[in-house]
Parts: sequence; structure tokens; C-alpha cells
Amino acid sequence: MTVRQLSLPDLVANCVRLGVPGVGLWREPVAEYGLEATAKLVRDAGLTVTSLCRGGFFTTTQGLDDNRAAIDEAAALGTDTLVLVSGGLAPGSRDLTAARARIGEAIAELAPYAGERGVRLAIEPLHPMYAADRCAVSTLDQALDIAERFPAAQVGVVVDTYHVWWDDRAPAAVARAGAAGRIHAFQLADWTTPLPAGVLNGRGPLGDGAIDLRRWRTLVEEAGYTGPIEVELFNDELWARNGVEVLEETAEGFVREVG
Amino acid sequence: MTVRQLSLPDLVANCVRLGVPGVGLWREPVAEYGLEATAKLVRDAGLTVTSLCRGGFFTTTQGLDDNRAAIDEAAALGTDTLVLVSGGLAPGSRDLTAARARIGEAIAELAPYAGERGVRLAIEPLHPMYAADRCAVSTLDQALDIAERFPAAQVGVVVDTYHVWWDDRAPAAVARAGAAGRIHAFQLADWTTPLPAGVLNGRGPLGDGAIDLRRWRTLVEEAGYTGPIEVELFNDELWARNGVEVLEETAEGFVREVG
Repeated sequence: MTVRQLSLPDLVANCVRLGVPGVGLWREPVAEYGLEATAKLVRDAGLTVTSLCRGGFFTTTQGLDDNRAAIDEAAALGTDTLVLVSGGLAPGSRDLTAARARIGEAIAELAPYAGERGVRLAIEPLHPMYAADRCAVSTLDQALDIAERFPAAQVGVVVDTYHVWWDDRAPAAVARAGAAGRIHAFQLADWTTPLPAGVLNGRGPLGDGAIDLRRWRTLVEEAGYTGPIEVELFNDELWARNGVEVLEETAEGFVREVG
Repeated sequence: MTVRQLSLPDLVANCVRLGVPGVGLWREPVAEYGLEATAKLVRDAGLTVTSLCRGGFFTTTQGLDDNRAAIDEAAALGTDTLVLVSGGLAPGSRDLTAARARIGEAIAELAPYAGERGVRLAIEPLHPMYAADRCAVSTLDQALDIAERFPAAQVGVVVDTYHVWWDDRAPAAVARAGAAGRIHAFQLADWTTPLPAGVLNGRGPLGDGAIDLRRWRTLVEEAGYTGPIEVELFNDELWARNGVEVLEETAEGFVREVG
């Protein structure tokens, strides 16, 4: 999504050129290009698919059938991780506790299905500013409280610096997740202010913001994480620019800030 | 601040007319109208000053001398509560832990001074979306961790629904604060989406948003709180309207939603 302006072939070719060994994909461009065609494109280039985004929205719009389809797509793409953005308050509700309970129920229905296909569900806690309308799971501890009801091979969490950097309990939660083998994805974005209207598309390029990104890499690796590190920047300004340039800058920023 | 477009005399006269028994004031309009004149205006009308906003910004712009001045102003206005918005990251820093430590040090310097003047410092945890640039104290537990180093007559916390509603640990923190006599202010605003650019001035009128406000009133009262309930709406749309109408609607909303 950092360079969603690129076609999948351009994305893959430039990742190979820049030495980026894997890509996280979103369902919509994969569906547009074709599931099998995408799998072949990435595989033939020697890249891995680090994760697929996203399942979830259990409290509102996305049904379990569509979530099962997302699991199938992850398996077809050869990735072991489906990221879940779980959904906010149910329509008309003001009950976050009920929303979190519904999220746990939905995951209970999906986890065995995912496990049978070699796909791990990765619950992503989103920043509390999204609690009402996107994700009632706001902290790593909340995500782990749900994940720990299931085997680690079925359900874990995403650690995304943008969402957890403010939380003084997050370092302990990272250790808790790592000890249980439940860090299923690690994503980087920086926190830049002022936030844009709607607060969705203002994630900062690495190094431009308030987050000590290297510290978070150290934390997850000290917790035992050895998987890929993704950079996920939702940013209107980046999307308006030349995608190849943005990809090059992002790769450079990665090496400079956390490499 | 809910009706900052009103002059202080208009604010006071309309509060009296509507049966609103007290007002929270901000330093800037008080300074403009005159400290002694404001104290007399409110006192002669039979209103109480529920709190003064604000001290704080310890990590950046506001020095201790100016914070002492704010304490003096609170005493002169006859209110026992000065609200603290503590400040975010120091310039060039990415260390929230250091910011929180600095906030604790500053409060240690101010607390006895406040106590001698009958003013309680009220640490306001701000929503985590303000952690970088306005307040590194993001949860009630963090605020209490600082407050509990001092006598409750010197330092406590603000419970503002807008800032804490998303936090599953906040109800327990409210009980913790109440048991120690440290809930020094209780403020209401609703959470409406989408958030505006800059995320400062989009606090929702009571009942328009995602927060179960009545539950929070119950929580603070079950924790032993018997003080005033303030409504603090930073909202560009409300500020652009007739202030008397907004004040009337706010009073009606208060009775309807939490009365």
C-alpha cells in the first residue's frame, strides 16, 4: 500500500531491482490482477509475500464467508499471514466491550479454518483514534487476550509502530507476544503531525516523525521475532508522487532508520 | 471553551438564566477581561468557577514561573482546581519516557506551591493521538502514577470522556483514582468521526458520538466523585454558531444524556 500507485508487475520488478526481498499485498489489487497471476508473478521473481491484508471488520461489513475467502487467497499467494483489522462499534452501539467480544467469536470461527490451510490470523491493534469506526482492538494486550485463546499457529498479533508507539505497556506486551511465538507481523510507519482530516492517510515516512523506530525493531527482535519487517505508509502525499521514487526512498529510509 | 465566542458577562448571564451552577474558565479570556474583574463577575452572579485551564506544557513552551502564575490565578478566581495539559515530546526528542519523567519533575516543583494556595493540580491524560505534540500522559494510569507521589490535596487527575473512553483499563483507573480522592475534575465530550484535520477541534456534542456518557458518570460517581461535571467541546462548527444557542443546546444535551 505504500506505493499503491504502482502496478503489481512494476512493484515486483522494482522490489527485485532494489533488493527488497518480500512484499505485503492487499486483496483489492490482487483480485484485480488475478489471484493465480499474482502468485506466479511474485514467485517467478523470487520474492516472498510477507502478508495479505486484510480480513476482519467482524462487527460491521465483512462477513465470515469473505474472511474465509481472504484466508484462501493468502494460502494461494503462499503467505502464512493474514492481517485482521477487526472492526469498530457495531452500528448504533456504544459498547466497545461487546465489539471486542464479537471479534473474539468471529476469530473462533475462523481460526481452525485458517490453521488447516497453513495461514495464521494476525490481529492488528489499531491506534485508539480508530476505536469507534475501524478497530475496537486498541492495544497489543487486548489483541493478545484474544489471540491466546487459540494455538499460536492459528492466531497471533501484528506489531505496527504507528499504532502502538504511544503505549507504555506495549514493550511488555511485545515480550509477552514474542515468548508465545505470536508476533506474526511487524510493520513500520512513523508518526507525523498534524494529522490529516479523517486521520487515515497521514502515516509518516520512516525518520520523519516521533517514533524511535530502531528501538521497536530491537524490542521485537529481543522478543524472538525473526520474520520480515514491512513498511506500510498510508499517505496521500506519497500516493500522489512517482511510485518508483517513493519505493526507492522507502528502501533508503529503512536502511537508514532501522537497518 | 465550549462557547468561547461569548464574552464572559454573556457567558455568566446565560449560565445563570439556564440554571448552570458553575463554569470552567480558560486563562486567556480571564486575562483579557481582567483577573479580579472576572472573579467579581462570577462571584456576584452566584456561580462557582469549577476549574481553570490550563497549566502544563512542561516539556516545551510553558515555564514553571508561568505555571505558578496559573496557580495564583486559580486561587484568585476561587477555584480549587488547575487543569494540567502536560506537554508532548521535547523538541527533537523521540523519548516519551523521558517526557513523562520531566512532567513528574515539574509537578514536584509546583505541587507544594499549589497546595499552599488551596489549589489542586489536575493531570489530564490526553488521548494517545496527542502524545507527540500535546501530552505524553496518555492514560489515567499514567496520570495516577505521577499523582500518587504527592498528597491528594495537591495533585490528582482529570477524567475526560473524550480522552479515556477507548481504554479498557480506564474504569479500574477511575476506581483507583476515586478511592484515593484524586478525581479532581470530570469532563464530558463525545467522540464523533471523521476527525477533523489536526484533530483538535472535533469534539462532539453530548449524544452525537460513540461514547456511553451515562456509564462514565456512573463510574466516576461510584468511585466517590461528587464534584461538578464540566462539558468541554472544542469544535469549530459550534464556535462558528450563535453562542447562546450552543450553550442552550449543551445544557439540554447534558440533561438528556447524563442527567
